[in-house]
Amino acid sequence: MTVDPNTVRDLDPGTRLLMGPGPSNVSARVLQAMSAPCIGHLDPYFLSVMDETQGLLRFLFQTENPLTIPVSGTGSAGMETCFVNLVEPGDEVVVCIHGVFGTRMADIVQRIGGNLITVEGEWGRAIDPEAVRKAIKGRSPKLLAIVHAETSTGVCQGLEEIAGIAHEAGALFLVDMVTSLGGMEVTVDKTGIDAVYSGTQKCLSCPPGLAPISFNSSAMDILENRKSPVVSWYLDMSMVKSYWGTERKYHHTAPINMIYAFREALRIIAEEGLEARFARHKLNHKAFVAGIEAMGLTILVPQSERLPMLNTIRIPEGADDTKVRRALLKDFGIEIGGGLGALQGKIWRVGLMGHTSHRKNVVLFLAALETILKAEGVSIKGGALEAASEVYGES
Amino acid sequence: MTVDPNTVRDLDPGTRLLMGPGPSNVSARVLQAMSAPCIGHLDPYFLSVMDETQGLLRFLFQTENPLTIPVSGTGSAGMETCFVNLVEPGDEVVVCIHGVFGTRMADIVQRIGGNLITVEGEWGRAIDPEAVRKAIKGRSPKLLAIVHAETSTGVCQGLEEIAGIAHEAGALFLVDMVTSLGGMEVTVDKTGIDAVYSGTQKCLSCPPGLAPISFNSSAMDILENRKSPVVSWYLDMSMVKSYWGTERKYHHTAPINMIYAFREALRIIAEEGLEARFARHKLNHKAFVAGIEAMGLTILVPQSERLPMLNTIRIPEGADDTKVRRALLKDFGIEIGGGLGALQGKIWRVGLMGHTSHRKNVVLFLAALETILKAEGVSIKGGALEAASEVYGES
Repeated sequence: MTVDPNTVRDLDPGTRLLMGPGPSNVSARVLQAMSAPCIGHLDPYFLSVMDETQGLLRFLFQTENPLTIPVSGTGSAGMETCFVNLVEPGDEVVVCIHGVFGTRMADIVQRIGGNLITVEGEWGRAIDPEAVRKAIKGRSPKLLAIVHAETSTGVCQGLEEIAGIAHEAGALFLVDMVTSLGGMEVTVDKTGIDAVYSGTQKCLSCPPGLAPISFNSSAMDILENRKSPVVSWYLDMSMVKSYWGTERKYHHTAPINMIYAFREALRIIAEEGLEARFARHKLNHKAFVAGIEAMGLTILVPQSERLPMLNTIRIPEGADDTKVRRALLKDFGIEIGGGLGALQGKIWRVGLMGHTSHRKNVVLFLAALETILKAEGVSIKGGALEAASEVYGES
Repeated sequence: MTVDPNTVRDLDPGTRLLMGPGPSNVSARVLQAMSAPCIGHLDPYFLSVMDETQGLLRFLFQTENPLTIPVSGTGSAGMETCFVNLVEPGDEVVVCIHGVFGTRMADIVQRIGGNLITVEGEWGRAIDPEAVRKAIKGRSPKLLAIVHAETSTGVCQGLEEIAGIAHEAGALFLVDMVTSLGGMEVTVDKTGIDAVYSGTQKCLSCPPGLAPISFNSSAMDILENRKSPVVSWYLDMSMVKSYWGTERKYHHTAPINMIYAFREALRIIAEEGLEARFARHKLNHKAFVAGIEAMGLTILVPQSERLPMLNTIRIPEGADDTKVRRALLKDFGIEIGGGLGALQGKIWRVGLMGHTSHRKNVVLFLAALETILKAEGVSIKGGALEAASEVYGES
């Protein structure tokens, strides 16, 4: 089972056009920053890097929350961080489920002994706030959690009304922004989000490995007044905050080079400007959908509930899911994602996230898909590229 | 609290000689591999990278265990992974404590509801197997845990006898190899270690961010026959193993570029050869100690219990801990560590780990320390460099 080191060759991944549900393509600037010399996690220069990173992340989250940091793990570690810090055994927790990531939240709540109440919605549609109101009626949950951008379905969930419902019931409002952050407007303070987590490998165009989170003062109150210790030592924010705060107390060794990369990704976003970035994501999404629909293919999600950074295409009759994805990767170097859970074999998930959200990628993908489907004998209409071009012409 | 992006300048950490307790200096090859283009976590090429990484890691751990992988977090996440997977609430767990990292293990056991039994040893000495035998007598613990290389004290813990004691009592033997792996012999299978975790930023000379672990069949049996789910979704090896195994089932997005770096660090180790690498660490340690003792300074740990990669020097009378460390960093670009816990202000921790374990670094450090202590008016003897040179002459 071990390996002869002489058989392990130089690393050479080549390049891919990453149009799956993440990771997205990483810019050369981010890769370069990541490969700067590693220094100590208590080095004065690194402490300044941490401060700048937190400042930039607050800007992106649109928050003033002091505890706004990247957790030392991938997006799912961010999800786990929020639940283990804010929920104690026996606490009532409402989880809205309309895809894989809501299901994952429910799983975590149960593992840590939370009293789980679910609001189930159709996969491919947003959750109706009325359903949330009903489920919560007469209850006083500790926390209500929902996914902003369901990466498994491509659905964008409205947050304002549900934030109000949570707060009326005295619950913290926790939002999964793994896929939305950096690709569409997220206003943590204005929307009244008490705790939020995200990932770096989606619209931030940074390699996977960190989970940006932010807790407001209500969340910090809950954390500071726990009766039981946080079940995870590694993710215990009551200790981690001392390292990211003014005390600089060692907790665990921060992933230095990943934080270099993250800081650079945030700088790039700040330079582009939030409005311009979100407009870019919208425009490329619109052109993409125009092309897909011109081909005669359909999008899983109704127009008003679509995400700008993740498109879910129903697999047309006669097309072989795996065969098409393999041809995209092999012949065109394009990675897309398949469906998860109930949607496996039924949809393709095509990301236009961060650095990947560019006209050239929209055009290449439409051309590649058209070529492959035609070769497979799938009946499709022409005019995809023209339809996309028209959208760009309009802008 | 947010930051004006225009005030955040290009990243420029400069270079440091990392002679603290980790991170150690990372070689250019590792940094270069880390900055290769990010590809998907289910990309066929990345799957081959995973296989090679596992093979190389088995070679380094000296094990045939199928579950031998890097966990997606830093060393402490590796510690937590072992406990949350192998311990259930109410399980009796023996933790040997002779420094900060034993204390951390005990903390984790209590958080997850384990029934903790501690064997406490002096900080700066190895744990006496007799003390372990006594503590375990008449008990049937589920697991016995100990730190191989206590990074807080510089002590090397003998493992063979304690492995036998654990197994006689029917307990799993869990070992913390965060600092030892890659710098001294570790023989997981031969020593009878059932579960082990490590970090990448010590003797592997890879940036922090991953925690190599390995579970043998006894540990896997315990995991597969649990009565309760693993409290951590993120670190649940019963799911993570399906991603690293033949099923390739998506769990969380792997930290792709960190795994590139880790694979390259493992390749470098395999190319050097384990014996040569361990001999290098021993030799530089010997020269270092000869120099330190020639100055009239003393090492905290008795000679027979010293680690080759981490030296703990008693701070001499008249020397100001912080001032000396600041001067080392500012005037010579050298980072060393201070004492932790009970040893704060009493010792300096000087690492010679992985890439950092080199004659040029030993010599520079001795010269720098001598200069600073003399300038501080601390009474020290001369001849440090000569004493070190003599050791190299002998080899």
